[in-house]
Amino acid sequence: MKFAHIGDLHLGKILNGHSLLEDQRYILDQILHHLKSHRVDCLLIAGDIYDKTIPSSEATEVLNHFLKCLNEQKINVILISGNHDSASRLAFGSSFFKQGNVFIQTHYSNQPIVLEDEYGLIDVYAIPYMNRFDIKKALGLEETPSLKEGYHRLLEQLNLDLEKRNILVAHQFVLGVSEPGEDSSEELLIGGLEEVSSPILEDFDYVALGHIHKPETILNLSGRIRYSGSPLAYSKAEANQLKSMPIFELKTKPDWELKLISLFPQHPVKMVKTTASDVLNGIRGLEMMDYLYLELTDAYFPYAAISEIAKKYPNYLSIFPSHQNYLFQENDEFDHLQKLKPMEIINSWHQRVSGRNLSDEQLGWIQELWNKGEKE
Amino acid sequence: MKFAHIGDLHLGKILNGHSLLEDQRYILDQILHHLKSHRVDCLLIAGDIYDKTIPSSEATEVLNHFLKCLNEQKINVILISGNHDSASRLAFGSSFFKQGNVFIQTHYSNQPIVLEDEYGLIDVYAIPYMNRFDIKKALGLEETPSLKEGYHRLLEQLNLDLEKRNILVAHQFVLGVSEPGEDSSEELLIGGLEEVSSPILEDFDYVALGHIHKPETILNLSGRIRYSGSPLAYSKAEANQLKSMPIFELKTKPDWELKLISLFPQHPVKMVKTTASDVLNGIRGLEMMDYLYLELTDAYFPYAAISEIAKKYPNYLSIFPSHQNYLFQENDEFDHLQKLKPMEIINSWHQRVSGRNLSDEQLGWIQELWNKGEKE
Repeated sequence: MKFAHIGDLHLGKILNGHSLLEDQRYILDQILHHLKSHRVDCLLIAGDIYDKTIPSSEATEVLNHFLKCLNEQKINVILISGNHDSASRLAFGSSFFKQGNVFIQTHYSNQPIVLEDEYGLIDVYAIPYMNRFDIKKALGLEETPSLKEGYHRLLEQLNLDLEKRNILVAHQFVLGVSEPGEDSSEELLIGGLEEVSSPILEDFDYVALGHIHKPETILNLSGRIRYSGSPLAYSKAEANQLKSMPIFELKTKPDWELKLISLFPQHPVKMVKTTASDVLNGIRGLEMMDYLYLELTDAYFPYAAISEIAKKYPNYLSIFPSHQNYLFQENDEFDHLQKLKPMEIINSWHQRVSGRNLSDEQLGWIQELWNKGEKE
Repeated sequence: MKFAHIGDLHLGKILNGHSLLEDQRYILDQILHHLKSHRVDCLLIAGDIYDKTIPSSEATEVLNHFLKCLNEQKINVILISGNHDSASRLAFGSSFFKQGNVFIQTHYSNQPIVLEDEYGLIDVYAIPYMNRFDIKKALGLEETPSLKEGYHRLLEQLNLDLEKRNILVAHQFVLGVSEPGEDSSEELLIGGLEEVSSPILEDFDYVALGHIHKPETILNLSGRIRYSGSPLAYSKAEANQLKSMPIFELKTKPDWELKLISLFPQHPVKMVKTTASDVLNGIRGLEMMDYLYLELTDAYFPYAAISEIAKKYPNYLSIFPSHQNYLFQENDEFDHLQKLKPMEIINSWHQRVSGRNLSDEQLGWIQELWNKGEKE
């Protein structure tokens, strides 16, 4: 049986004020295309379906359309909720989805979803994101365990039949992974997620994880425990990443195959570090509609060039200097400024921003305001 | 084939600060019980499923559970969105619901849902709430029609086959109905809904309407065009109403039967007009947990009794006087007040509210504050 593994869709994500919904539609269409051409039987979606617990109606439309298309292509779906999702909202209609072979798991169950192919049965355990309090409740514990201990006990409860092929779909921060990037959305959670680890993870024939956005994040040598990564870049730390989707086939228990399918976004998120004039002259490989994090290395911040850059790359996300405190970075300039009169400082700032000196009339107005301010 | 007709569920409704979710669960269970015992084949739900376009997750759980139970009992469902619903949110999963014979119509279609029984085919047209701009778009008109004209043209588009039995499910304010009550939630919409009317309505074998909450609101002599009313009272104007659910059976085209099933809420909404002492002595038929609108007819507003009444009827919604301006309603009292000193007026108010005079110490504190206020 052939599976594909995605996660961290974050439908409805807004990145620096830019709605990514069109990009998300685009990448889901691409994923659908790959599922079809690779004749995938079952898609595993490892949580963080939406970016917010109350998704916009547009975001729900995107998921609705995606699930409908999967159903039309007779692709089974096993989907769990992540820490960004509202479990109860995502559970809406799940009894009906199940009849269409879309299994939405938003609450813990130690019972697998059982699939079958010519080699026998496959048990798929789908465990939504859980914190230690959820685990305490799910297992009926008296004390709240640490997440690591609790998760281990949770996995013990599954009572894997090691004769069969077993898959786990989960949304957690599993030990052994490097920390998420500095400004990744996961960092916005206080303390992020606690780490999880357990030797039981090694007993599965495939562990489809969600939470880490970095592609090809592999947790054991066999490559069977892995994060798919998000299908799109959702933070500065993810800029320039080539995202991908694992497609794997389980035949007999030891016999399996894995392919990584590269995903190409409509408008990639890019991080560029260069001078303003280089940007305005055109950077090779940078398209007009790319999402751009631009770090300017100019010695003086090129205020006047910013509006031109913004026009050239309307999807820019952030433009920021390599150096802090431009104005006073060099003692020379500081000394120079100290010798100037207030009107001269204002004019020199205006000159830098607009490229023009203030007119005598303008200087007169400012002088008037200045005098008035000094009096008060 | 046997149908039941409900509408205006307003799941998640909060009435004067009281969440009605438990009451809604209770009444939906009662409805389920009746559907089962009357062997209903198909439930028509005529819009305003939720009270808000973004329902709470608890409200979505209630609908989810209700639909799941209906599906387990193999009862078909035809459900439309009302003016309180978000069409696109309600549409989520509709392709899957359809596979379970739950038809969720949130956008206009001139194609019926076709049902079949031993007498032949039944065409059910389900038209969600539409305003005149929706109609313009749906029919591809150049000008925006009046709602009445537009709706008539919409119904013309259906091209009814009058040989068959035809049902319409709609959520509109159909001409011929008395206005909704003064404080009904529908009044909160600016101008409420415009009226709709069309002779084509008479061509249907049953028109299941939603929007008006009053039970047994019948629009033609045959009783075939009707509002079910809401299953619970959702405003002061609906207090003391006995809500009901029409169950009708269509056999051959002329041969039909209708029953009205009374619905009994867990805690009815009651409007009582009497004196405070009567309330405290106990009103026959008024239960402790009833939702109570209480109009007090006492000549003087019985401030001191209010907290006792609130304790006796913790689900009270509003307590208000029959008479306005108690303090000055009689010239005698006004003349009397004019002769009092400030401290005497304050004490007389305190006496009325608490039943006790202020102590000398309390009067001293107030006098002190009064003097301080006069100085400033």
